[in-house]
This record gives sequence, C-alpha cells and structure tokens, in this order.
Amino acid sequence: MKKTILILLAVLSQTAFVCFGQEADNSKPASTNVVGADYPRVDAQHRVLFRINAPKATSVVVSLGNTALTKGEDGFWTGRTEPQTPGFLCYTIKIDGVELNDPSSETFYDAGHIYSCIEVPEQGVDFYDIKDVPHGDVRSVWYKAKSTGEMRHAYIYTPPGYDQNVKQRYPVLYLLHGMNQDRRAWESQGRANFILDNLIAQGKAKPMILVMEDGGLAGINLAARRAQSPAGSANAAQRLGGMDPFWNAFAKIMIEDIIPMVDTRYRTLTDREHRAIAGLSLGGAQTYQISETNLDKFASIGVFSAAPFGFAGIEKAYNGLLTQPDAFAKQVKVFYIGQGSAEGPNAGRAIHEQLQKNGIKHVYYEAPGTAHVFQTWRKCLYGFAPLLFQDK
Amino acid sequence: MKKTILILLAVLSQTAFVCFGQEADNSKPASTNVVGADYPRVDAQHRVLFRINAPKATSVVVSLGNTALTKGEDGFWTGRTEPQTPGFLCYTIKIDGVELNDPSSETFYDAGHIYSCIEVPEQGVDFYDIKDVPHGDVRSVWYKAKSTGEMRHAYIYTPPGYDQNVKQRYPVLYLLHGMNQDRRAWESQGRANFILDNLIAQGKAKPMILVMEDGGLAGINLAARRAQSPAGSANAAQRLGGMDPFWNAFAKIMIEDIIPMVDTRYRTLTDREHRAIAGLSLGGAQTYQISETNLDKFASIGVFSAAPFGFAGIEKAYNGLLTQPDAFAKQVKVFYIGQGSAEGPNAGRAIHEQLQKNGIKHVYYEAPGTAHVFQTWRKCLYGFAPLLFQDK
Repeated sequence: MKKTILILLAVLSQTAFVCFGQEADNSKPASTNVVGADYPRVDAQHRVLFRINAPKATSVVVSLGNTALTKGEDGFWTGRTEPQTPGFLCYTIKIDGVELNDPSSETFYDAGHIYSCIEVPEQGVDFYDIKDVPHGDVRSVWYKAKSTGEMRHAYIYTPPGYDQNVKQRYPVLYLLHGMNQDRRAWESQGRANFILDNLIAQGKAKPMILVMEDGGLAGINLAARRAQSPAGSANAAQRLGGMDPFWNAFAKIMIEDIIPMVDTRYRTLTDREHRAIAGLSLGGAQTYQISETNLDKFASIGVFSAAPFGFAGIEKAYNGLLTQPDAFAKQVKVFYIGQGSAEGPNAGRAIHEQLQKNGIKHVYYEAPGTAHVFQTWRKCLYGFAPLLFQDK
Repeated sequence: MKKTILILLAVLSQTAFVCFGQEADNSKPASTNVVGADYPRVDAQHRVLFRINAPKATSVVVSLGNTALTKGEDGFWTGRTEPQTPGFLCYTIKIDGVELNDPSSETFYDAGHIYSCIEVPEQGVDFYDIKDVPHGDVRSVWYKAKSTGEMRHAYIYTPPGYDQNVKQRYPVLYLLHGMNQDRRAWESQGRANFILDNLIAQGKAKPMILVMEDGGLAGINLAARRAQSPAGSANAAQRLGGMDPFWNAFAKIMIEDIIPMVDTRYRTLTDREHRAIAGLSLGGAQTYQISETNLDKFASIGVFSAAPFGFAGIEKAYNGLLTQPDAFAKQVKVFYIGQGSAEGPNAGRAIHEQLQKNGIKHVYYEAPGTAHVFQTWRKCLYGFAPLLFQDK
C-alpha cells in the first residue's frame, strides 16, 4: 500500500501544477471534464486554462478566442483564454492544423458534430445547478412511430413525485432543439431537467412533463433522406434548405406519433390548455410552424432565438390571429418570445415589436449579454416555464 | 428550391464515393456514426472503411489493427482494416502522431476516456438490436446519498409495462460496469436495455428493473479523492491500486444508499430472492466483494470476466460456503460465471473449475471468440438474465 502511493505521488509530481506568472490561481476543473481530469480549468474571471499533451506538435490552438498555447519542456502545451461569456461553450483544439476534441472533456452533439464543450459558471446564477432538491427522471424512450414505421427515440422528463402520485395527471411541455442538435440537447447542454427540478422545488413552476424528441434531420426517416441526398456528407443546413418534405414531415410526426405516444404512455392532461410547445432556433421556427396550424392542441407557445421562417407575414400568420388581440388572448394562454441581447433583431425582437404594435398579449425577454447559445435558452426556459399551466 | 438542390449536388459530387479497386462495395455506415455520416463503414467481412479529411497531414493511422490510411489528391485519407471481431470496438485515429477521436463517430466513455467506438454487427446475432417490441425506459436519476452527502447519479431501466401496472412490484438486477467506465456503459456500450426488452418480449426473462450506478472512481466522493491525489492526473488503475478506502466505499454506498434509494423510489420486491447483482471486470470483482458479505440481500450473482481479487481464496470465500455444495445451493439461487473464450483462465474459467471440483452449483459460459470486450458481456447478460427470478 505505501509503495503504491509513493509511486503514485512520483507520477503526479511530474504532471501536477502549472503556474501562470505570479498570479494566484483560483481556477477549478470544469464540471464538464471527464472524471478526474484537472484540465481544462475555469477561473473566476471566466478564463479557461488548458494543458494539452502533444510533444511532437509544432502548434496548438484552442478555438475559444483562437488562443495559441505555448509548449513546455515536458511536451505539454499550456495557455489561458481571454475572459469568456459564461455559459456552455463548445470548442475544438487545433494541433498542427488538425481540429480535434479535447480528450479531457466530455463531448456533446452540437452543430452537427460531437464536440468538446465546457461549462463556464456565471456568478450569481444557479437556477440550473444540481441541487439537493427532489429530482425528476429523464427517460430514454424508444417507440415505433406508426405514421412512418420507424423506431424513434425521445427523452422525457417526468417531474418529482410522478412515480408516487399514481393518480395524478400532468401537463406537458414539448421542447424542441435547434438545427444540428438532437433530442439530447435540452438535457445535456440545456440542463432543462435541473431548471425544472429547481423551479418546482421553489413552487415557481407547476410539476410538468417535458418531451424532448428529434425535430432535426435525425428525426426524419433516414432512408428517405439518403434517397434525396445519397452521399450523406452535406451538412444539415444544406440539406434542410428548402427541403419542404422533411420540414413538414416533422410537424406530421409530432401530431400523429409523438403526442399520441406521450398521451398513451404517460399520465398526461390531454386538453390543449395543458399542452405547451417551445423551441430554440430551428426548434423555435418549428414551434411557430406547428402551433400555427394546431392551436386546437397547444394553448401555450415559447419561441427562443428564432425567426418565423414558416410565417407568411404577421398579417397572415396564425390565420390572421396576430392582428386580433382579443381573439388571440382568448386562444393563446402564454406567448413567450425570447432571445439573447447579443443576437440580431430577427431572433425575436422584431417580432416582439410587431406584436406590441398590434396589441397582442405576449411576454418578451432578452437574456443580457448572450448570443445564439444555450445560456440564452436556459434563461428563456427559466422565464417561460413558470408562466405555464397556472390557470385554475 | 431548384437552385438549392443543384448547389447541394455540386457539393456532394465532390465528396461522394470512394472505390476500393474493383470490389463490390457491400459496406454500410456504422450505426454508431453521427447522424448523416457515411464513414466509417462496415462491410460484410467485418472490415471497417475509413475516410478522413486531413489535407495537411503526413500520416493517418487508425488504431483498429494499426491501419495506415492512404492520402488521396482531394486531401481525404482512405483505407480499410483487416476483418475485425464483431462487437463494439473503441478506437482512435492518429494524425501525425496525435491521437484523436473520429469526428464522424459518436463517442463513449470507456477506458477512462471519451472514445470513438464502432458497432460491427455479428451475423446471426440480433438479441441486442432495437426491435419493434415493447421497450422499457432507461431513466437518468439524481439523488442525494445520505451516507456521503453527495449528489449521485444512476441509470435505471424500468421494464415495459412498469408505468401501466401500477400495483405490480418488480425484482431488481444491480449491474456494475468495469474499471474506467461509468454508469453509462451498460446502456451505451452494452445495450442492456435492448437485451432485456427482447428477452422480456420473448417471455425468456421476467420483467425486472436494472440499476446501473457508478462503482468506479466517478462514484467515490471527488473531494476525498482529490485530497489523496491532488493533481488528478493519474489514471484510474493507478488510483485504485491498493486504495482500500475507495474500494470499500462503494460497497458501503451500494448497501446504504443505492439499494434504499431504489427500494424507496421504485416499485421493487425487496426480499433477497428478488434482488440480483452482476458486473463485468472490475464490476465482477465488486460483485464478488459485495455479495460475499451481503448474502442476506442478494440471492443471485453474475460475474463476467473477473478475477475475484477480493477473495481470500476459495476455501475462505463466502464464509466457507464455496466448499459446502448443499448450503451454497440453498442460499444462492443463481451463480453465473462468464468470460470470453479469448481471455485468459483467470477471467472466470479457473474459478469455474474450482467450483466444479467442489461440487458447487453454478452456470459457466464462454462467449465464443471474444476477449475482454462488451460483446462478451452482452452475451453473458443474455445468458444470465433469463435464469433470474424464475422461482414461483
């Protein structure tokens, strides 16, 4: 036993600490690191510290701020980025021009790739932390979609108490991801489950079911996709562009497969007042598209960082309802538009201004200082969820 | 619309097909690929075809069979491995000596790292496929461990019908992963949920709950670990070696935290006859260790590819029970030892021979042709699960 620990310490002493000048090092390993990995680290100034083993490399550059690392005599490359905007940041490391993931970081499916991403904590913001409160389960759910014949895969959050209160039925929020993300995004990157756990524990949100399915290309029958795009090597944006059949296919699957599956398999409240839909970016556009033609199924709508590219203009949208304040307020309980303040006006602000001009009841929110990133969408969900299902 | 598709085809035509001489290409994209990625591909001879974009590289080598790829004029490196043993294979790509993950492949936590892994189908073997049968849910579950005060994370499979049959209680199999894996392994790599779905659908296994928690370093209080190994850069094997406190900590957490949490939160049968424990490799050794001192809690035991390094020799193990055939058979309903035929005898065969000599009732299985890999453990679970909880 003694010998083991001595050898261990000998190994560690060679690879232990990296000092950056004489500054006090208040950095901590990122929560997104592989267990046991001490790098990357994040300091209180939101700077990310890297330490990469690449003895043969001639250049190592981290994509966060395009930060070049410096080679040490031990073959490790070290460096520190400029302060980052806090939140969930995806990055790559370029070693001699080859882009790769950080072996010390957990990976996430985003932007159509498996990426290293890092959690940079925002001071004073803890609504998505893992706290000692009752936690709901996030379920990985497989089922057969009757309309297409394919096996589909959803992630479904059931709130704390769901398994105990077997007579209780719950409202449902359908939560759509963005382009080049998939059903995993709202849990892995968005921490939607922890946001709901915390809101429910504080009595700020009603216990509800979250349904996270797949509205991107991953969700559309692969065979049909390959037929149209055989080599499969174009990116999702190229494929989606103008591909109405795929775009409409998901709306059909949502209505014909996903909702019926959820209402059969889980104890849901099935009236429109207890069903909401929201999405980010592409998922926000899908939210406009799906809710517009299915107001009999959804009474609450959340759109985060999305342009309404299914819209035929605000006058014609929602069957003209966006020009009729009273009729709209009667039908739509919650209409929530959110975006990051660092995004352009077409991510929500422009629509908000039109709605305001038309006297349409809605809630508009801008996440301070963030762009088209999950920190914006976490805050949107945090603002949106408490508004839902509050009618007696 | 027309223009979009034309541009799309122009892009695709540059990156479409790679031919390997004049052979017919019967290969298909691996099921483990990122959605839409056409490479890596697997052919009927279990060879893996790669196509990697690295125009500036001078050498690209895939770790599967140490296969060097060949550079094409378009900057893509292509090549094909020798036939692989089918199953779930993890690999890296070395570009100019730098090891990295395949950007086209999903990643998995194995061997202490986030790795690219590829599913190579085994002809005639479909017991772990995603079929059109009722599927259980795999739940991501967070809870507070009372004995340590830390927040812990489990994956829990509830069988098909669990949510509908709200009066039914279910037996539980605790399923432990190997060293440098974590709670995700049995689902992601092992496909334990699909194995159970299929067995249950065929009436071959009783509906049961699977509990996949974290018996490796990830499960042991991180602060305590850091105190002992501050830089956190030693690998898990070095850390575990001789670290009795951590080794015993998990056994304590299993008994004091995990089982009580599961029995409180899910509808379990809580007698020993309806609780089983099994594990692979390190998890198999932990299965020996935990079951040996807790036969009041577990009546069925499965050990896959593990040496009993908690054993004080077979004579003293299990309080001498492994020398008393009648007493053993009375206490232990199922004792299942499995390994791959390509592993050494200490992975199970040696124990089996001793048990046989001692007249101890047990089941021994060797997975044909596989080594210390998940294909072995999938087959072990497939053999073990149907034996469980079959007493009236």
